Amino acid sequence: MRTRHTVLVFSGLDPSGGAGISADIEAIGAMSAHALPVVTALTVQDNDNVFAVNPVDANILRRQAEVLIDKIAISAVKIGIVGNRANAQAIAEIISRLRKRQPDLPVVLDTVLASGHGDALSEDHPNHTLRPLLGLATLVAPNLIEAERLCEGIQTVEAQAQALMSSGAKHVLIKGGHGAEDHDVVNRWITEGEGHAWTWQRLPGAFHGSGCTLASAVAGLLAQGRPMREALTRAQQYAHKALETSYHIAPGQRIPNRHVGMGE
Amino acid sequence: MRTRHTVLVFSGLDPSGGAGISADIEAIGAMSAHALPVVTALTVQDNDNVFAVNPVDANILRRQAEVLIDKIAISAVKIGIVGNRANAQAIAEIISRLRKRQPDLPVVLDTVLASGHGDALSEDHPNHTLRPLLGLATLVAPNLIEAERLCEGIQTVEAQAQALMSSGAKHVLIKGGHGAEDHDVVNRWITEGEGHAWTWQRLPGAFHGSGCTLASAVAGLLAQGRPMREALTRAQQYAHKALETSYHIAPGQRIPNRHVGMGE
Repeated sequence: MRTRHTVLVFSGLDPSGGAGISADIEAIGAMSAHALPVVTALTVQDNDNVFAVNPVDANILRRQAEVLIDKIAISAVKIGIVGNRANAQAIAEIISRLRKRQPDLPVVLDTVLASGHGDALSEDHPNHTLRPLLGLATLVAPNLIEAERLCEGIQTVEAQAQALMSSGAKHVLIKGGHGAEDHDVVNRWITEGEGHAWTWQRLPGAFHGSGCTLASAVAGLLAQGRPMREALTRAQQYAHKALETSYHIAPGQRIPNRHVGMGE
Repeated sequence: MRTRHTVLVFSGLDPSGGAGISADIEAIGAMSAHALPVVTALTVQDNDNVFAVNPVDANILRRQAEVLIDKIAISAVKIGIVGNRANAQAIAEIISRLRKRQPDLPVVLDTVLASGHGDALSEDHPNHTLRPLLGLATLVAPNLIEAERLCEGIQTVEAQAQALMSSGAKHVLIKGGHGAEDHDVVNRWITEGEGHAWTWQRLPGAFHGSGCTLASAVAGLLAQGRPMREALTRAQQYAHKALETSYHIAPGQRIPNRHVGMGE
């Protein structure tokens, strides 16, 4: 009897199908896990720009998650945009309930503060919104811009990672995709007594949903019990391949091809 | 430069990831097309039962679709549950706008009236909700139960198909999955001057999202210009394989493995 491990996903809907819940469903499926998608916000966007973010009622979100966790074993949680503070609070409560029976439940927090293009994705200030979730995160995965915003006044990547760990996150992955390096993208993993930096060739052009793809792939692998180092390595290999084989649906940002490297 | 044809999808969110927008995104991707997901309703459900259907505000849905069609070429439209009459009306208006520039735009209408388990999926009576959409459908794809409900008082499958064609649908696929046959599932395609019946071995157990998987695969193939007969044949082969390799996430209905048979 075939079974798949599940990832409970809290994420925004991106009607362009590049980022958000589309990226989560496809990347988690590509890792041979199964996404349970709970939508936090209905965004209005194309493959380049975000025009509006409509948060979903926290009561709907809570009820959806409760029905799932009452019947289906949850192997990991992945959080993208949350929409507003009420949703962040509801998600934190659900995770706390799950952690009572599964203290080691992996939680991946992708601190999406803006679209690839720079449009804001939350009603409230991210530091207020994300605070209850940071303390529950197994892995927090900001890009360089997000790390700076989350850790105002802290200059170096190492110090930013330490600050995020002080807030409760066990592992930090700081993604270099939006950095200044011309030819390389450096992703830095920082945790207590361990760490690594991966260097990837920077690919030409811009992509819609690369961060969601990477974070969801990590969650899909952690759901299957992979250790963090292996999950981070394999997820980056997958995400890089998805970008290399990305496709156009219109002028502007390309869509990662998340159908590469399927299965075990 | 790689490009993919797009399918504009109007569909419900199923947090169990079995049916609705998850099925659409995965099946359309598996056909090498790209889904543009617009959510019509946020359902509360697990892999067996539907507990609530929360329609999305028609203004959000309309705005999401407008932003997409202003920038991205649409190669097909797929409609699942619509949530209520206001959403059906908004979807009909969007299709009418698209048809002005693309008179042949394929529209696949999956007349989902209830979950596999029999729970209702719309606030309003389906005949009122679906009327404006039936007239715009290239293909309407009810199962036996839905065909009976849509054509009250009409007994035979052939007469039901004729009635749906009188309402404006060009092609009808009546799916036998919920029929009385023990060993076989017969899917009947009826259209003006053409038609075919496919017989598939009935697989043991129950599935969550088999109808959405089939209809979305058809839409993904029509988006790439495949003729109806070929699209119906290939989509059924794909859907059958997805059911054969389906997996459990909890006791009860299994999830079709939509990651089979990827690529061209």
